[in-house]
Amino acid sequence: MESTSPTLRVTADRLRAFMAQAFEKAGMPAEDATIASDLIAQADLRGTDTHGVFRLPAYVRRIRAGGINVTPDIRIIEERDATALVDGDNAMGHLVMHFAARTAIAKAKQTGVGWVGARMSNHAGPAALYAMMPLAHDMIGLYFAVGSNNHLPPTGGAEALLGTNPIAVAIPAGSEPAVVMDMAPTVAAFGKVRLKAATGEPMPVGWMIGRDGKPLTDASRASEGFLLPIGDYKGYALSLVIGLLAGVLNGAAFGRDLVDFLKYPEAATNTGQSILAVSVEAFCPVDVFKANVDDAVRMIRSAKRLPAVERIWLPGEQSHERKRDRVANGVPIPPALRKSLDELARELGIDPLA
Amino acid sequence: MESTSPTLRVTADRLRAFMAQAFEKAGMPAEDATIASDLIAQADLRGTDTHGVFRLPAYVRRIRAGGINVTPDIRIIEERDATALVDGDNAMGHLVMHFAARTAIAKAKQTGVGWVGARMSNHAGPAALYAMMPLAHDMIGLYFAVGSNNHLPPTGGAEALLGTNPIAVAIPAGSEPAVVMDMAPTVAAFGKVRLKAATGEPMPVGWMIGRDGKPLTDASRASEGFLLPIGDYKGYALSLVIGLLAGVLNGAAFGRDLVDFLKYPEAATNTGQSILAVSVEAFCPVDVFKANVDDAVRMIRSAKRLPAVERIWLPGEQSHERKRDRVANGVPIPPALRKSLDELARELGIDPLA
Repeated sequence: MESTSPTLRVTADRLRAFMAQAFEKAGMPAEDATIASDLIAQADLRGTDTHGVFRLPAYVRRIRAGGINVTPDIRIIEERDATALVDGDNAMGHLVMHFAARTAIAKAKQTGVGWVGARMSNHAGPAALYAMMPLAHDMIGLYFAVGSNNHLPPTGGAEALLGTNPIAVAIPAGSEPAVVMDMAPTVAAFGKVRLKAATGEPMPVGWMIGRDGKPLTDASRASEGFLLPIGDYKGYALSLVIGLLAGVLNGAAFGRDLVDFLKYPEAATNTGQSILAVSVEAFCPVDVFKANVDDAVRMIRSAKRLPAVERIWLPGEQSHERKRDRVANGVPIPPALRKSLDELARELGIDPLA
Repeated sequence: MESTSPTLRVTADRLRAFMAQAFEKAGMPAEDATIASDLIAQADLRGTDTHGVFRLPAYVRRIRAGGINVTPDIRIIEERDATALVDGDNAMGHLVMHFAARTAIAKAKQTGVGWVGARMSNHAGPAALYAMMPLAHDMIGLYFAVGSNNHLPPTGGAEALLGTNPIAVAIPAGSEPAVVMDMAPTVAAFGKVRLKAATGEPMPVGWMIGRDGKPLTDASRASEGFLLPIGDYKGYALSLVIGLLAGVLNGAAFGRDLVDFLKYPEAATNTGQSILAVSVEAFCPVDVFKANVDDAVRMIRSAKRLPAVERIWLPGEQSHERKRDRVANGVPIPPALRKSLDELARELGIDPLA
């Protein structure tokens, strides 16, 4: 998938070991450091580069500033047969959601479905990671989260009260890759806006508006404007509803209470996330379901195509192919990222990545 | 909300009685006719006119053509503590989902959450109706359905394999109206396209494309083109995922297997729908949650506004206000609808609506 370039490539194992060592040096117990590093490396393998090792320096900075608790007591504080509310005790979000996903899977084994919400969590990387955890148990996963920053106003509003709250759904297939949707309810992710700002390119009309309601295309002025939701009022409604389900229902932050985790590395964010695991077997024999999903996938892939379209992709298929490449050939570490990780290694007194 | 016009207005009670009588004349038992009529009248009261009494002649036509079973055995065919799969036995979709929603609510009372899927169902009217059923039990409702027609291709495709599969979420509030999102993953509903075709107005760019991939704005040529998804590939992914959750998981129709219920009034559609009920109490004291939703609603409503914007609406708030008006002043029946209902009444030998 990647073009040949002088960019360093490291194996997932080396990446994991480097991250685990960094987390341990920052004070995290070894077992937790392993879990967090595994999940972050999954993001890198799937090509979600903005949510992978790229974030390590910021995570470590938060830990060292006291903004993340490295000796948390992650626990269930409210429970029914098919539901749980988890208090993350301000741990790394990855650890909280790892715990929450396992809890949801265990409940779905017993009752057919498990819905587990979390409060006092933190940024946990790509939504797809957690929606995909039930797949190995022949379960469907759904994940909702309150985004870490508010960039979205309600329709008609000129005040960013809502986040790019993601929703992810992962559905197991047979010989085809799982169908994995992971989307924010905005046309563009804020990371893409930052990228445009870095390269000086204009943004397409439709990504952002200014405080005057007119299209904003100068990415260097992004802080003066707002992201636009998908489908106009539909994306606004989706963001609000996800915020209520993953935030308010769990007693987590929402709206003006949100803490910008980049601006305030020392403050607890009280991030809210929710995960559902749904046992396929509770509805349909697993082999029948997987064969039917395979059929559905192939039907979509072989649909008649518009002129000049070479291939129709399924949700999650490009990430799946990227992972295949990166497992075989390593995770690319562009020069700027390598520099930032080398600095972090020096700061922590650990071996550099390569 | 409605302007003063010579349009007939009828009370919800009269509307319900008229519909129930029509269904009974078509062979439906009285109890079922009452349930279906109540739900359809709810759609009319909330202003979802395309899914209200407007559909009655088509429903009756399907019943008389043998396309709907009026003496069904709606039953659970697979069950866990928190899940059920319902076989609708080709009943009216309203009856199947009424049964499914009650089952989900009963399960959520026991286990915190209930997820109930249905197969062998039919068109059930607006998604919001079912997502809202748990509200009276201090529960959150979520609803997914496979749309009755395929109008959406996958991104890059020139073949409508996917439906305007709706998702609805209803969240209880305290003194504010419940937050109710009800959306299809396409920019425009096909009903809006039909309306443009009827008036001869052009459609805005962005609603549809033709088989050449170029914008289609002539609504009279709609059958040659495709609806566009919200957020490009995001709306495609959303439609696919809903189709797998509400269709394939339940053993219901999906993709090329879908039966166009308007074209083939005699054929079973095997429509799939899924409903979740989530007990608020399993996560948060109900009064605390409702007060927090009220706060969230007021925060959004009082956000700073863009120039010339008079009011910021919450999802479901306009339907709520329309219902208030129609409960007080009656449901408007425009002349063309009145004519079609008068014809139906003559055909069935029942009293006209007014």
